[in-house]
Amino acid sequence: MPDFAIGVDMGGTNLRVAAVSVDGRLLEKINLNTNLSVRPDDLVDAMCDAIQRLTKQRRDAGNLLGAGFGIAGIIDLEAGVVRKSANMPSWCNYPVREAIEHRLGTRIFLENDAKVHALGEQWLGAARGANEMALLTLGTGIGGAIVLDGKIFHGLHGMAGEFGHVTIEPEGVPCGCGNRGCAERYASATAVVRMAREAIASGQASELAKAAATAPEFSAKLVYDLAVQGDEPARRIFRSFGRALGILLADIVNVLNLKMYVIGGGVASAWDAFAPTMFQELRQRSIIYAASAPDEMAGSLEGAATNTVNRTLQKTIITRAVLGSDAGLYGAAKLSMGCTSPR
Amino acid sequence: MPDFAIGVDMGGTNLRVAAVSVDGRLLEKINLNTNLSVRPDDLVDAMCDAIQRLTKQRRDAGNLLGAGFGIAGIIDLEAGVVRKSANMPSWCNYPVREAIEHRLGTRIFLENDAKVHALGEQWLGAARGANEMALLTLGTGIGGAIVLDGKIFHGLHGMAGEFGHVTIEPEGVPCGCGNRGCAERYASATAVVRMAREAIASGQASELAKAAATAPEFSAKLVYDLAVQGDEPARRIFRSFGRALGILLADIVNVLNLKMYVIGGGVASAWDAFAPTMFQELRQRSIIYAASAPDEMAGSLEGAATNTVNRTLQKTIITRAVLGSDAGLYGAAKLSMGCTSPR
Repeated sequence: MPDFAIGVDMGGTNLRVAAVSVDGRLLEKINLNTNLSVRPDDLVDAMCDAIQRLTKQRRDAGNLLGAGFGIAGIIDLEAGVVRKSANMPSWCNYPVREAIEHRLGTRIFLENDAKVHALGEQWLGAARGANEMALLTLGTGIGGAIVLDGKIFHGLHGMAGEFGHVTIEPEGVPCGCGNRGCAERYASATAVVRMAREAIASGQASELAKAAATAPEFSAKLVYDLAVQGDEPARRIFRSFGRALGILLADIVNVLNLKMYVIGGGVASAWDAFAPTMFQELRQRSIIYAASAPDEMAGSLEGAATNTVNRTLQKTIITRAVLGSDAGLYGAAKLSMGCTSPR
Repeated sequence: MPDFAIGVDMGGTNLRVAAVSVDGRLLEKINLNTNLSVRPDDLVDAMCDAIQRLTKQRRDAGNLLGAGFGIAGIIDLEAGVVRKSANMPSWCNYPVREAIEHRLGTRIFLENDAKVHALGEQWLGAARGANEMALLTLGTGIGGAIVLDGKIFHGLHGMAGEFGHVTIEPEGVPCGCGNRGCAERYASATAVVRMAREAIASGQASELAKAAATAPEFSAKLVYDLAVQGDEPARRIFRSFGRALGILLADIVNVLNLKMYVIGGGVASAWDAFAPTMFQELRQRSIIYAASAPDEMAGSLEGAATNTVNRTLQKTIITRAVLGSDAGLYGAAKLSMGCTSPR
């Protein structure tokens, strides 16, 4: 039986722990229905219990290589401390590595959750084989990660890939970060709900108004369902979403010129509603993308220079994530399998 | 005497060739007053003659390690071919590496000119010792380069660092690339002249109008001189320039989170006119920058979270290039000194 590692996904809505084999099979997964607002020490206790149970059951099958943790928030990788977490406010400055290593008696690996998602997709998902890629996760906000030479690129403070706060509209919607017009104000679940509320307030979106009045919770999913049914105000919201995401992607392509860009997160499932305007903006706003887009995308390109280059260039791929929420478990486990990330 | 390499800067207004020692001294520099519009083969002949003269004179002093070429344009590094050069249109698809290697009888190294500038500043200039940095050159347009781990980061097509075409104003000024609102439409010499012409046309800029009517050539330098003299319309143009550059830098910081960003090119000499608004935008639009700005810049920061983080974070440095136009010669020579760039 192959060796395995533990991957932990913490900071989403639930805490999940999995055993993943070195050949990329998810051997077992535990969903701890733990409230993330309990004291950090108690959460770590519960988590370590689960890890030890999983490990004991598997020990005959292969060696435990280590444990990796994907945590939503700003992680000080050097100190092993959570600096800030929107979902887990009580974890501010909590020395999580020390707390876990103390209980498990083994060295562990920490990483931001979007970055382990990227690692998962790069190892076993949409970006398999692409050593240079970026991931954008579209959820409440926009998470991001850059993988270079098969490894997470952290930057000076571990903050590289903060795509959600790239400015899309300089005088646009204020953002909690202090900026205006951040990408995540236009291309996230939160943004869809904001745009829907604005459409309702304008009095021009009767179906959206009806849905908002009757649904127990007004969500991006609800707006998407209406868009799929052909409701024009709902469709317009996703076109606007696609435009913003296209501007963001064009900026990222112009800066990084990577092989592959993977779009994940809950709102990525609205792909068919936002992708057309996304690709349209991308082609217009990044000459690098336009010249290297896959043929079905480059069909409308004009200009001899572009076409000449196009024939010889490797393709730039923009695609959907395929591993869903398990990407974080795979990526976290991969952290401790070596060669993928600094401690 | 130390070994040396040849660095060539081609594609600016002049063709320049230099011998640079491995310890970073510019031993000799030849400025070939060659018209860049002559046939590529003739230009290569003149250039190779100059290189051979330089090499012969130096041969007793140390070994020639190789020759590196910084070329303005899109270079196919794999094929050794210039794909496109705005300054040298006749070089389109010219097999420059083969042409030079054939004449010199030695292996040579090609690179885009902004990228050798970056390498020069990273080796001997403003970014000395910063292994992770980006360069922005403000000239007719905006050139860019990213250095990671002391090496040029090329991306898939050698186009990483195309900062000039990051979108600043989604519905802004049309750009030759097909996009609207590209950074270089707002923060380049061309942009300064455009804004000055618009100010004159509005009838609200009498000093600019006077200068435009009398000067033999209306340039960004002229607008800068008026700004220094306190002319409000001219000052406003550089504030607008600084705002756009600040938005661009904030986007780059949010994506890359590097240690250092160096601003070079001719218009960088207007630093005092655009830097205040540049830093103001940066602080507002990049929480990473705001939290890690040097103290004199971070003085006005508020908020406990930011201050807490600020104490422990390494500083993010935004600074001016120091090597001027010689940066390209140093960087091109460095190309052939090993470990800096792929062939």
